[in-house]
Amino acid sequence: MALLGDKEYFKGIGEIKFEGKDSDNPLAYKWYNPNQVVAGKTMREHFKFAIAYWHTFCGQGADPFGPGTQNFPWDAPSDAVEAAKAKADAAFEFITKMGVDYFCFHDFDLIQEADTFAESEKRLATIVDYIKGKQKESGVKLLWGTANCFSNPRYMNGASTNPDFNVLARAGGQIKLALDATIELGGENYVFWGGREGYMSLLNTDVKRELDHMGKFLGMARDYARSQGFKGNFFIEPKPMEPMKHQYDFDSATVVGFLNEHGLQDDFKLNLEFNHATLANHTMQHEMEIAAAHGMLGSLDANRGDYQNGWDTDQFPNNITEVTEAMITFLKAGGLQGGGINFDAKIRRNSTDMDDVFHAHIGGMDTFARALVTADKIITSSQYDALRTKRYSSFDTGKGKDFEEDKLTFKDLYDIAHENGELELQSGKQELFENIISQYI
Amino acid sequence: MALLGDKEYFKGIGEIKFEGKDSDNPLAYKWYNPNQVVAGKTMREHFKFAIAYWHTFCGQGADPFGPGTQNFPWDAPSDAVEAAKAKADAAFEFITKMGVDYFCFHDFDLIQEADTFAESEKRLATIVDYIKGKQKESGVKLLWGTANCFSNPRYMNGASTNPDFNVLARAGGQIKLALDATIELGGENYVFWGGREGYMSLLNTDVKRELDHMGKFLGMARDYARSQGFKGNFFIEPKPMEPMKHQYDFDSATVVGFLNEHGLQDDFKLNLEFNHATLANHTMQHEMEIAAAHGMLGSLDANRGDYQNGWDTDQFPNNITEVTEAMITFLKAGGLQGGGINFDAKIRRNSTDMDDVFHAHIGGMDTFARALVTADKIITSSQYDALRTKRYSSFDTGKGKDFEEDKLTFKDLYDIAHENGELELQSGKQELFENIISQYI
Amino acid sequence: MALLGDKEYFKGIGEIKFEGKDSDNPLAYKWYNPNQVVAGKTMREHFKFAIAYWHTFCGQGADPFGPGTQNFPWDAPSDAVEAAKAKADAAFEFITKMGVDYFCFHDFDLIQEADTFAESEKRLATIVDYIKGKQKESGVKLLWGTANCFSNPRYMNGASTNPDFNVLARAGGQIKLALDATIELGGENYVFWGGREGYMSLLNTDVKRELDHMGKFLGMARDYARSQGFKGNFFIEPKPMEPMKHQYDFDSATVVGFLNEHGLQDDFKLNLEFNHATLANHTMQHEMEIAAAHGMLGSLDANRGDYQNGWDTDQFPNNITEVTEAMITFLKAGGLQGGGINFDAKIRRNSTDMDDVFHAHIGGMDTFARALVTADKIITSSQYDALRTKRYSSFDTGKGKDFEEDKLTFKDLYDIAHENGELELQSGKQELFENIISQYI
Amino acid sequence: MALLGDKEYFKGIGEIKFEGKDSDNPLAYKWYNPNQVVAGKTMREHFKFAIAYWHTFCGQGADPFGPGTQNFPWDAPSDAVEAAKAKADAAFEFITKMGVDYFCFHDFDLIQEADTFAESEKRLATIVDYIKGKQKESGVKLLWGTANCFSNPRYMNGASTNPDFNVLARAGGQIKLALDATIELGGENYVFWGGREGYMSLLNTDVKRELDHMGKFLGMARDYARSQGFKGNFFIEPKPMEPMKHQYDFDSATVVGFLNEHGLQDDFKLNLEFNHATLANHTMQHEMEIAAAHGMLGSLDANRGDYQNGWDTDQFPNNITEVTEAMITFLKAGGLQGGGINFDAKIRRNSTDMDDVFHAHIGGMDTFARALVTADKIITSSQYDALRTKRYSSFDTGKGKDFEEDKLTFKDLYDIAHENGELELQSGKQELFENIISQYI
Repeated sequence: MALLGDKEYFKGIGEIKFEGKDSDNPLAYKWYNPNQVVAGKTMREHFKFAIAYWHTFCGQGADPFGPGTQNFPWDAPSDAVEAAKAKADAAFEFITKMGVDYFCFHDFDLIQEADTFAESEKRLATIVDYIKGKQKESGVKLLWGTANCFSNPRYMNGASTNPDFNVLARAGGQIKLALDATIELGGENYVFWGGREGYMSLLNTDVKRELDHMGKFLGMARDYARSQGFKGNFFIEPKPMEPMKHQYDFDSATVVGFLNEHGLQDDFKLNLEFNHATLANHTMQHEMEIAAAHGMLGSLDANRGDYQNGWDTDQFPNNITEVTEAMITFLKAGGLQGGGINFDAKIRRNSTDMDDVFHAHIGGMDTFARALVTADKIITSSQYDALRTKRYSSFDTGKGKDFEEDKLTFKDLYDIAHENGELELQSGKQELFENIISQYI
Repeated sequence: MALLGDKEYFKGIGEIKFEGKDSDNPLAYKWYNPNQVVAGKTMREHFKFAIAYWHTFCGQGADPFGPGTQNFPWDAPSDAVEAAKAKADAAFEFITKMGVDYFCFHDFDLIQEADTFAESEKRLATIVDYIKGKQKESGVKLLWGTANCFSNPRYMNGASTNPDFNVLARAGGQIKLALDATIELGGENYVFWGGREGYMSLLNTDVKRELDHMGKFLGMARDYARSQGFKGNFFIEPKPMEPMKHQYDFDSATVVGFLNEHGLQDDFKLNLEFNHATLANHTMQHEMEIAAAHGMLGSLDANRGDYQNGWDTDQFPNNITEVTEAMITFLKAGGLQGGGINFDAKIRRNSTDMDDVFHAHIGGMDTFARALVTADKIITSSQYDALRTKRYSSFDTGKGKDFEEDKLTFKDLYDIAHENGELELQSGKQELFENIISQYI
Repeated sequence: MALLGDKEYFKGIGEIKFEGKDSDNPLAYKWYNPNQVVAGKTMREHFKFAIAYWHTFCGQGADPFGPGTQNFPWDAPSDAVEAAKAKADAAFEFITKMGVDYFCFHDFDLIQEADTFAESEKRLATIVDYIKGKQKESGVKLLWGTANCFSNPRYMNGASTNPDFNVLARAGGQIKLALDATIELGGENYVFWGGREGYMSLLNTDVKRELDHMGKFLGMARDYARSQGFKGNFFIEPKPMEPMKHQYDFDSATVVGFLNEHGLQDDFKLNLEFNHATLANHTMQHEMEIAAAHGMLGSLDANRGDYQNGWDTDQFPNNITEVTEAMITFLKAGGLQGGGINFDAKIRRNSTDMDDVFHAHIGGMDTFARALVTADKIITSSQYDALRTKRYSSFDTGKGKDFEEDKLTFKDLYDIAHENGELELQSGKQELFENIISQYI
Repeated sequence: MALLGDKEYFKGIGEIKFEGKDSDNPLAYKWYNPNQVVAGKTMREHFKFAIAYWHTFCGQGADPFGPGTQNFPWDAPSDAVEAAKAKADAAFEFITKMGVDYFCFHDFDLIQEADTFAESEKRLATIVDYIKGKQKESGVKLLWGTANCFSNPRYMNGASTNPDFNVLARAGGQIKLALDATIELGGENYVFWGGREGYMSLLNTDVKRELDHMGKFLGMARDYARSQGFKGNFFIEPKPMEPMKHQYDFDSATVVGFLNEHGLQDDFKLNLEFNHATLANHTMQHEMEIAAAHGMLGSLDANRGDYQNGWDTDQFPNNITEVTEAMITFLKAGGLQGGGINFDAKIRRNSTDMDDVFHAHIGGMDTFARALVTADKIITSSQYDALRTKRYSSFDTGKGKDFEEDKLTFKDLYDIAHENGELELQSGKQELFENIISQYI
């Protein structure tokens, strides 16, 4: 296929094939096939895979103990707009070669922030226009946009939860532009990740006041976007900590409670991330179950953490058991509400070849594809669902049903307890459930 | 003073003195003085210290790798009622010698559960009557009662969240009796700790259905107790895990959201525990701040975890920095809503002398006393409060105030951002805040 | 087949088939086939699977928040010897039905400890004699024996590291008997797990003195066993904590250093456990690599921990990725030095059906079998090994080889650095390595 | 006092007073007094406090989610040498104002690394000469030097453990220069921190070969330094992880074993860090005890981690309990072997005032001073030491002594066990020990 920009950044890598890895081509999907139908939909429809602009085209492998190692050719131009266009060319080349339909971005992933707000606004307009052209040319769509209100030093004490109102206002101004850009690029959703919405120390923090500010702020942002015709979902992305000591959007349950409390529950859903789940001492499946139980399973950030390391490693997903369990919940919840699978993952600092990023995404997409097929088979072909349903059958009839229908009092329970006598133990059969999962992988 | 029972269990230990530890008496409080006034109330009024029946009189030092080591003389009788009375005698002897005003209990701490529900009901009635006498004799009060719906094998899959309705009903029957006993003994509050309300594996669990059951069940319990004239608070005690892989009452934020969702917010508050906070990757002060921000800071379980070990160690509190920070929030929140400070802590398995449990409680109470005095001085004598308030002053006037009063739109924020230009960074001064705390300890 | 004891404990469960789980029989291996040859040996020879007497026949599902739930019929007899024989009958019935060749035990798994040392010695002799008969009858062998020097209250402050010499001596006496029993039953190895060899608090502990005592003690035990003709390996089993706050045998590297320091390195090797590895913040593969690098990869305890829970959950292994990585190291190290794969794993507390323990072991053995086959294919059929070897090729010739052969000085390195100029970055290609593993699973 | 450089960087901050914080001056030590004698030595002699060049003068508050916030005036010059001199001026101004005697550095803290090795060598020589002048002028001494072999991309796969021999050689060249610089500046010790000596993934790593390379390399470095007349200690600084997934110098015990194995034990000791201890799931006191038990307690890096966050937060120390426990071991070990207390700590990203770094160091030094005085009182005035010694008294005479003197066989222990009968339990009295610590703080 023809290149989208003037220059081929990923030289020698043609379009990735859907031919299975057993072939001689190491850059081919083994399990992912966009047109394969699983549970009534194509993989393409199920997943809406998206490439994360920030990790894949902006990240260079820096960590707290050293600068970047990955010197990308598109970072060469010294002029901000030229560099931004080169990066966009590289991005659309990569996305197209991978055969992916979507991308996601933060405002200042697209172009470097300028020294003044006015100049940043202009820059954004320029690059949004350019990217709109790339989208038209390639058919690539925007899964969601967001604003980076955590990197700039001005946000060091938070954005909407900053103790200084003027910083809050600045965040509002920035997010207005990010919402405008998302709408302009046909974004299907808009995400809030509260990177510095939390605290470094409780000693200098008024938690109640900050939470109230955040609630108000999100409501105002929603109202603005709706007034501009935005019909998509708003997503909150929970993370328990890092960069802050504590972040207010700790986990699914915390965010659900917050949204309900501030009247945001009809417009907002959750964007859940594997590595954020494990940092919060949860499994990803748990986070998804809690979101689904409240009708708020919006979108997923695909990656994985390191179980022995306590920070956000954002590694590419490759744990087939973990992803299969997530896909069981995914299928049973009827998929995602508006969102897709975004690879919020980065290649390791020492992965410095130009093909490493292809290996990484192929491995990740294959893991999801295999997990989806496996989960579907578990649900449709094994005894898994029947065993699970049977555990709760005492609530489907008789007194159990009465309980679910609010027909019993506490005193009734006491009477039933007396009548029943001692009860037989019902095995949870966890090992059998686990074996079923293993056998289908 | 005269012993309350026939036998002196803690021989050679007279009433503990309030004379300071610099004396030759190792069994004397150094900092705790019940009648000392701090911030307008006596320590006695602030704390309402309570002894936990289960750890102090029932626990014998067993752990998963070995049986108990502490052979208490009150466990000698083979008859259940006799043993229960001996334990009650020992308990009131200990509480009285310590100079503590309150105790807390689970139903089957008081007496061993019988083989049938009917027989257990009778046993409970007998021991409640006996303890009522001990209370009258000693003046010791009941801070809160609760039911143990997690130890008996029947609850291995949960109580109100059990997949088997009949187990749920049995839990209802048991809790009815615990509520009755609490009312009978003048209990000021009633606690729910959902030890097995959670899951061992997501694979066999219907999270949504279980959460709905728990919400209904708690509402029914409340309605029953209110119908019996109970005026006190209901408390939920968050804990993230153990014995279950995951417990639904994960932390303060999760429980607040749950209570609001199920219409329980007017009757229920939180009973927070230090060790449960740290198991959830929070500080205790964080948990207290979240509860206080929602008007739900009900009661505290005093203990501490081990930062290097990942289970519930329930050690006696002795970290003066940790407790001082908690007491800052305590004082600023105006104290607890109905509850007190209950020592949900156990002496180590290898603490086998009869005086060890005295050392443990004295150390714990002294830590709280010293922390309270320190926190009060920090608030009233240092620049701490002024520094903290000043951080938020931009919201007290002008546009910041307008924001808090809902007078601004998102577009207004954008306009303000444009007007303001770049902002000066405001140091969070965390190290100064920390130094203030250190200097006052 | 005929039952070994008088009574069939696991009723209705015939011998487990090796026919694949796709059959209608849920109690059949899908991947494990003892006679299948992989990398030049049968699975039977590779693994030497063993059943852990303590979990499978003694554990009843108790946890710190409740007593056991699994009421095994072999625990019914009130006489200690009779109960021990019933348990042995059940054990050999289970082992035989599973088609497993080995078992492992602690002394007082076999029979309940008596009130005096002399009486315990007699009881042990009786049951050892009985079990010897069962072994002869069934062909089941002893992989290793050990002594439980951590459950009895006398060991609450440690065994060989106890501050009281008399407890140390008692542990010596007990271990002498366990060594004698192991020899009598043809045990191929002997294990030390230092459950209470560590500390509860550093404040009351003389670390140096305790470590010296432990070193001496192990040397004396070795000398005794060798004097009795024992030719097998001694194993140390690392675990970082629990039941103690800290255990001296923290991890592989710590134990290797300790063994070298105390002159034990020629007789002792390591018995590594998955769950202990993760409690120490390592992967199991890491622990195996460290042991193998020192020629001390002795034996494995198969189980898994819970990555979200911080205690020893001892769940049955089912994580195919984790076990496959372990099997790569296993194969590359040339297998284990004398040991085997022992299932130090327990069914969940709420797994109360008699077939649950079969599901559990079948799932675990299948996971190892599948992992072994996968690891072998990765090593022999993929580019994995070549890629890994190539990374180090600069040390195979020229100056790199000179370095390995101690022919260079530090000044030589400086000169080479000057000559070389800046170096090209060599990608670690981690994502490609990970994809290879995933594709072969 | 007169400023050392041309410019005053820390304006308005005079020399810090030793007058106690109760004064109106918030920039005064409350507890630290360099000339105060404790346990026979002045605080100055005990501590040898050092300022870390990297955090205090190079770090600007960057984190993985945003660039630096602290714009220091000494970073203004664009010329590398000029900037380095300005930084040195600021450094010596700060160190002198603080009244501290020592500093520590990495080679490229002093001056920015150049594009070629030869040019970097020249730059280093220039700045070393300049700093030598600053030292002469101020009397400030060098506690230790080190080389940064982890930040530059060339070290992304390790330095002495790099799979590419040429990178190993480059590290050798760089460390030769750092050793030369340390000797030139009168450095009392030299430190190795193996930031990237470990692995990102076991899959692409030959652990044995890498460990062997590291052992050889350290021996060669030692031989070179000794040949240049260096008489000081070499220190290894353990850290379990970060930036690597796993680092070979995991903790005290691992490093002690490694040093013994590679014949390095006579020249190398340990430089222990609080935050690294907790990342390894140890307390700092534990790490110090293990080092002291092997005569290797060399030096300390003072800071603290966050118990709820899983990465290296390097906060300033302020936990009086934690530091007091460390100081007990410090005093009982007879202090440090050659090293001192270096503040490897950084102010928070949002601490952007020029006085924040003063508050931070004052708080840290005060915490150590108070802890030292407290620890000394505990050892000399309380029953702490006597209680602890008494626990082990059974090894001071009789059979226990015989055991320590290798006069018993394992069979003797068995005989003693038989003679003794059952033993009385000896309480560990942990709560009493803890109370003693608390009361003296």
